Amino acid sequence: MRKIWAMVGAASLFLPAAAGDGATAAALRDRALTDPTAWNVLESLSYEVGPRPVGTPAYERARDWAVAKFKELGFTDIKIEPFAKPSWKRGAESAEIVGPHAQKLTVVGLGGSIPTPKAGIEAEIVVLNSLDTLLAAGPDAYRGKIVVIDQPMVRAEDGAGYGAAVRARYAASDAAKRGAVAYLVRSIATGTGRAPHTGHTTYAADAPKIPCAALGAPDADLLVYLAAKGPVRIRLKLASAEQPKTTAWTISGEIRGSGRADEVVVIGGHIDSWDAGLGAIDDAAGVAITAAAAKLIGDLPNHPSRTIRVVMWGSEETGGSSEAYLKAHQAELPKIVATSESDLGADRAIRIKLPKGGATVPALAPLADLLAPLRVLVSREPAEDAGADVEDLVKAGVPAFAFEQDASRYFDYHHSADDTPAIVDRAQLDQNVAAWTTLLYLLADSDADLRIKSAK
Amino acid sequence: MRKIWAMVGAASLFLPAAAGDGATAAALRDRALTDPTAWNVLESLSYEVGPRPVGTPAYERARDWAVAKFKELGFTDIKIEPFAKPSWKRGAESAEIVGPHAQKLTVVGLGGSIPTPKAGIEAEIVVLNSLDTLLAAGPDAYRGKIVVIDQPMVRAEDGAGYGAAVRARYAASDAAKRGAVAYLVRSIATGTGRAPHTGHTTYAADAPKIPCAALGAPDADLLVYLAAKGPVRIRLKLASAEQPKTTAWTISGEIRGSGRADEVVVIGGHIDSWDAGLGAIDDAAGVAITAAAAKLIGDLPNHPSRTIRVVMWGSEETGGSSEAYLKAHQAELPKIVATSESDLGADRAIRIKLPKGGATVPALAPLADLLAPLRVLVSREPAEDAGADVEDLVKAGVPAFAFEQDASRYFDYHHSADDTPAIVDRAQLDQNVAAWTTLLYLLADSDADLRIKSAK
Repeated sequence: MRKIWAMVGAASLFLPAAAGDGATAAALRDRALTDPTAWNVLESLSYEVGPRPVGTPAYERARDWAVAKFKELGFTDIKIEPFAKPSWKRGAESAEIVGPHAQKLTVVGLGGSIPTPKAGIEAEIVVLNSLDTLLAAGPDAYRGKIVVIDQPMVRAEDGAGYGAAVRARYAASDAAKRGAVAYLVRSIATGTGRAPHTGHTTYAADAPKIPCAALGAPDADLLVYLAAKGPVRIRLKLASAEQPKTTAWTISGEIRGSGRADEVVVIGGHIDSWDAGLGAIDDAAGVAITAAAAKLIGDLPNHPSRTIRVVMWGSEETGGSSEAYLKAHQAELPKIVATSESDLGADRAIRIKLPKGGATVPALAPLADLLAPLRVLVSREPAEDAGADVEDLVKAGVPAFAFEQDASRYFDYHHSADDTPAIVDRAQLDQNVAAWTTLLYLLADSDADLRIKSAK
Repeated sequence: MRKIWAMVGAASLFLPAAAGDGATAAALRDRALTDPTAWNVLESLSYEVGPRPVGTPAYERARDWAVAKFKELGFTDIKIEPFAKPSWKRGAESAEIVGPHAQKLTVVGLGGSIPTPKAGIEAEIVVLNSLDTLLAAGPDAYRGKIVVIDQPMVRAEDGAGYGAAVRARYAASDAAKRGAVAYLVRSIATGTGRAPHTGHTTYAADAPKIPCAALGAPDADLLVYLAAKGPVRIRLKLASAEQPKTTAWTISGEIRGSGRADEVVVIGGHIDSWDAGLGAIDDAAGVAITAAAAKLIGDLPNHPSRTIRVVMWGSEETGGSSEAYLKAHQAELPKIVATSESDLGADRAIRIKLPKGGATVPALAPLADLLAPLRVLVSREPAEDAGADVEDLVKAGVPAFAFEQDASRYFDYHHSADDTPAIVDRAQLDQNVAAWTTLLYLLADSDADLRIKSAK
């Protein structure tokens, strides 16, 4: 295969460097569709490291895995950037209906929840069909009760149902302010599986802290059904511990530019994951897609002009790496020419949103034609959100781009035990790599200043 | 609604009773498509009783639920038929990879497995890609190892992949004969969910008994991946107890015939279930479909000539109720005109297989036209298998009929935590009720002797 690349590389010498090289981009794109790198990286991180929340032994293995994987894929300038990150450790968890009849429930504690007393909390439940019903209630409305919110999430191609539903995962304090002794939320999820979906939560400063957990969606249905017939009592046991002094690590590696090497395109995914599944779509996929795209470009005999940096951010699930990354890279900001994170799973890319004005940059003009065979549109809308781990970079003025992916089934699995390589459609994963590779190559092999366009 | 039925009933008086009444059957069929009974029964059994293996308190509640439900739906001659049935009780279960790195596995003990010692069994695994590989191995091939069979199940509309794959669930003794200390089988399932699928197993008399469990399908993938890289050690803990003296109950109720009331059509589902899920498709659905179909016919002002008996068989999952039912009804055999069990979930009926020669019985001649609007074919093949709980009746000569259902996704959920009402498509459930109602009415309102046809 080397030979083909050498030929493509030779051909590209006849093209003006600043205009990008459509033929090379097209060849890279097509090669990405059958390249096994992304799948191999995704499997390796999911299986060899497994679930990897900050503060666990697996998370330390993930750091070492990242360094080794960058080396193996030919990246250079590999860096480990530590930052302080308090963490939360799950213990044994269980819930059961005590009456009218004994029946087990499936629950998972929300990340950050306080534990229950060892014997658990037993109380009658109140089932509310929306968060707004809770918020509308008076200060003593649920005194002594376990509040259950049964607000289903809407399935949508762009995953927009998540934003609408996830507020309920942060509402334990709203229940506590109304007298509740514990808080259960229907999993923020679109599927019918019984595996509950965890996620981060926080407490308000002005409310008593109460234990909180997510119910499997069918368990929420069960409670709705039983509560409509009469009083239902639940016993909830959650164990957990705060680990205030843990360290997180963001790891990066580079495909060094051959011309303007100090100009950097910063992309990546996050290395941490929740603990119930294997973190395959959240976010081994993002790590795999971006590393594979950069690696394919790195395999070219002539690297593009600018440097491509792949970052495996250290703490997305409970926050922290975006701020830490900005802080560590403040001096470098003017040289970060664009940024984006892949963190919405492994299903197909549908649309690319460029930085404001990006569509008029000559170097990116071939993009629409190059992405058309992949069935990816160039959006007329500029990118605004480019991923949680680059949020602070973008706020600081770094131009953002973002691939929109099909998120129709992402929230069937997200943050649950079902997030494993078994749910990954390899053809769609590879389509993502192809789309990323195409754009990355054009961006890195141009001298376009997207920042100026963004400021227009 | 009563009025409409009264009118239909009046109209039917002008039709010859022995020929069945196509207009009434069509009206019943259409009413079934919007009747809430099946859904209500399915929800009620799944949620109010929950998981209900023989020998559990929930199973006793299921018996009482069945009697109450039959009464509520207007059935008469309600009978509880007890029979002795040893049972098996699950205790705490866990499995984890010990090395190369600690990682939890999802497992569920197979019904009938012996327990491990309290501290568990720790050993290196051997992963085999098929049962045949195990069977081909010599007597000492897996001495001291935990054998893992990773044989995936094929998805097929008629569920035929199950028969091919399920043999591996019964192969713990084959591993033991080759020196294995424990046996793990990839869930006999088609889905990608991590919830493992349990099921019955048995031991051979000429092999040491070893503990055995099913792995979630993604966990089998994980072990395949890791074992290809080097030695993998697992710790398996299974607790369980035999309960040799438990009692099971088969409960039945009747829609008494208005003419040849001593002639009985025997249909139903099974009341027991596995314990991981709520037993919604296995088999609250079968109970619901058959009870709803019979109930609709029972609501007619004039019952059909023959009696329809709905049976909720007491022990399908680990066997016993088929034999017990035959034994208790031996004297009645010549009067059981036909039988069938609904036990393949709630997805749409595709085909009806009649007793041999059934398609030429004049009373059933309208069937093809009546079922066409439901997209149900009358098969040219006669029914052979009509459900595990009527197997002994059929062997004893009772004519069998069988609706083939779309089982494409049945084995995504079957015997796992994901078997809940959330996965039931209510429109398809109702289509089943409509198909059953149509056939049942024609069968019950005729004097056709299907046994004679079967013997041809």
